[in-house]
Amino acid sequence: MARIVMKFGGTSVAGTERIRRVANIVRAQAAQGNQVAVVVSAMAGETDRLVNFCREANPLYDPAEYDVVVSSGEQVTSGLLALTLQAMGCKARSWLGWQLPVRTFANHANARVEDIEGERLIASMEAGEIAVIPGFQGVSETQRITTMGRGGSDTSAVAMAAAIGADRCDIYTDVDGVYTTDPRIVARARKIKYIAYEEMLELASVGAKVLQTRSVSMAMKHNVRLQVLSSFVEDGSPSADSLPGTMIVSESEMAQLLEEGTMERQSVTGIAHDKNEARVVLTRVPDKPGAVADIFTPLGEAGINVDMIIQNVGREKGETDVTFTVPQAELARAQALLDDRRDALGYNRVITDSKVAKISVVGMGMKSHTGVAATMFKALADRGINVQAISTSEIKVSVLIDEDETELAVRVLHTAYGLDAEDEAA
Amino acid sequence: MARIVMKFGGTSVAGTERIRRVANIVRAQAAQGNQVAVVVSAMAGETDRLVNFCREANPLYDPAEYDVVVSSGEQVTSGLLALTLQAMGCKARSWLGWQLPVRTFANHANARVEDIEGERLIASMEAGEIAVIPGFQGVSETQRITTMGRGGSDTSAVAMAAAIGADRCDIYTDVDGVYTTDPRIVARARKIKYIAYEEMLELASVGAKVLQTRSVSMAMKHNVRLQVLSSFVEDGSPSADSLPGTMIVSESEMAQLLEEGTMERQSVTGIAHDKNEARVVLTRVPDKPGAVADIFTPLGEAGINVDMIIQNVGREKGETDVTFTVPQAELARAQALLDDRRDALGYNRVITDSKVAKISVVGMGMKSHTGVAATMFKALADRGINVQAISTSEIKVSVLIDEDETELAVRVLHTAYGLDAEDEAA
Repeated sequence: MARIVMKFGGTSVAGTERIRRVANIVRAQAAQGNQVAVVVSAMAGETDRLVNFCREANPLYDPAEYDVVVSSGEQVTSGLLALTLQAMGCKARSWLGWQLPVRTFANHANARVEDIEGERLIASMEAGEIAVIPGFQGVSETQRITTMGRGGSDTSAVAMAAAIGADRCDIYTDVDGVYTTDPRIVARARKIKYIAYEEMLELASVGAKVLQTRSVSMAMKHNVRLQVLSSFVEDGSPSADSLPGTMIVSESEMAQLLEEGTMERQSVTGIAHDKNEARVVLTRVPDKPGAVADIFTPLGEAGINVDMIIQNVGREKGETDVTFTVPQAELARAQALLDDRRDALGYNRVITDSKVAKISVVGMGMKSHTGVAATMFKALADRGINVQAISTSEIKVSVLIDEDETELAVRVLHTAYGLDAEDEAA
Repeated sequence: MARIVMKFGGTSVAGTERIRRVANIVRAQAAQGNQVAVVVSAMAGETDRLVNFCREANPLYDPAEYDVVVSSGEQVTSGLLALTLQAMGCKARSWLGWQLPVRTFANHANARVEDIEGERLIASMEAGEIAVIPGFQGVSETQRITTMGRGGSDTSAVAMAAAIGADRCDIYTDVDGVYTTDPRIVARARKIKYIAYEEMLELASVGAKVLQTRSVSMAMKHNVRLQVLSSFVEDGSPSADSLPGTMIVSESEMAQLLEEGTMERQSVTGIAHDKNEARVVLTRVPDKPGAVADIFTPLGEAGINVDMIIQNVGREKGETDVTFTVPQAELARAQALLDDRRDALGYNRVITDSKVAKISVVGMGMKSHTGVAATMFKALADRGINVQAISTSEIKVSVLIDEDETELAVRVLHTAYGLDAEDEAA
């Protein structure tokens, strides 16, 4: 017997037929004697419809009333899933955010969970009732409905799991797990069985869009075991439990699994790519103390996220080229800022390039393995791929390359770190 | 300064453009210094959509979960109207059923208001905030959402008006008031300025579908002045207040208005017609004590609503024909019941006729005027219209006639009681 939180996204509950499929998966978990709480999103497209209504009503909308409107989407699916489970002979009931309650700080439209009252929920689950909970919603101190910002249902589910001391939190999405890299690029990409919170955060932030970053951080904070699974099983049969998804766990659980021999230690767990960066080069910057600070301080103050930085050896004495990356979406703003400060900074030209990609190799194993970065540079050099910039963290090495070489680089590195599966496709 | 509850139905709030029109009408009331609470229905079509989802999910749905799903429609419009009012510079906020709270007896999907907490609402209105309230919804003792059955928003509005001691409750519909008769039949029908609760109930129950009967009964019980107005004013200009609708008031207020000379006493206030009745004739029923009771007792026990009853003089000695009416929808059931009891009742034949219409003249004035029924029979006889059955109450006389003569009868009576307007159309 385990206590499980299951979470289904908008695509999984889009329409009564899909809700029936979800109910089958939930029923299978309950039938195994597990205590089950289900967190649901609004039907795909519904939140957009409601947000549009709000925009039409009032472009500068009051977030408190916005929350009244948009929270209704999850309310509908929670009632419908409870009804569907009942039709299958299960005991089930919905619990709205204000009923539990899910208390949040009253930051309307972008609330954060303060505290979830788990007692009544646990009592109901112990009495054999499946709890169905609308994700994304809570209640403020003044008893008004709050919502947690787009995609907040993953976070709701993790917070719920923490509140009721769940053995794990299963997130059903349209992918069936986290892969060593994008399977559309590398056919031999493998599904990762276990991954540490920290690795997942690095992979998520560099483009593996399986889970919301915030939900992974929260799981890490409360030590909630998170599992990613697919809800798109063929014919809707309740075999989801047997599909091995990806389990996201703590570093200490990883260490224990390694000790037991349940998993092998690898230096690199996964490879991510991100084509949304842009490169900026400032040429002939005066090579004097404080010059670099003068460049990056205003960018930081403007909220522009600078990632990689390289300072080239100057071609002329007393001058240097400074290269860095910013998100493409912020490139225009960064350029305007630099143009304004041209005289003060004393550089010659700004050269920008959006045709770049960031390739990252991520793994807890780097902490104990040496030579991970060297392997990367050699593998890329052997194929003639030029590295334009580098950044590293304790568990990640990222390089900036020409965008056209993205797929090649990912494939080369996937092989170099021994990640290729023996058979194609997972 | 007055305290007013305004209620808008589903057609009036179908889409953000119509909600803007409603907001204009509401703003005009508030701008006159009135304290305003607005009760809204779900967008037209939305409740049907949600009910269908419930049926698809579970044909034998749990009414508690049904309420979670369908109450969301009014939640959405209340938030959107608050947003729209804010966009126009008004202070406004929504109050959901559980927030006020609107306490109901936990008869899910068909709840009745037990008690509405008006204090916070009054405080908010006194502080200049327009209160926007989703109709149709409340909360049970166990803190679950309840709904009041289809069309319950009129009743919500009246209950709200009673709870906050409103000076009047304005119901905006797609007709702009109650008319002396159906204007599609009589072009000279006049809008009624004042009508007593009792008259309105008689007119509503015989086919003038302007207000829900339950809301009128509740208004009568709590002495809430009800006004019917149209929300379909041209170009959405905030001139609604100047449109004279129909005011539904107590008998004592009517008496006062008569004394003041604000209105004239008339014997008949309005004329209604109803084509949904069917006539049943049992021929050659034994003319003995208890025979009639033997016919009507089983019909009553089966919940079949028998309206008019006539016992003809028997053609043969010791026999009589019994004629009565039932709603057309219940005719088949009534006939089956009578067939089953043919031997016990000892009648000869059952003759049924759905091609009949009930014409009713209604007016508090009948209490003091004499000859009202005589005027009716004479007017109909002069035009050769045959009366098949008659029923009367203190303020109503109804006759059953051939359905084909409905329009003629209504026109004749409208003239006979001096109800025709001087100019065509109101």
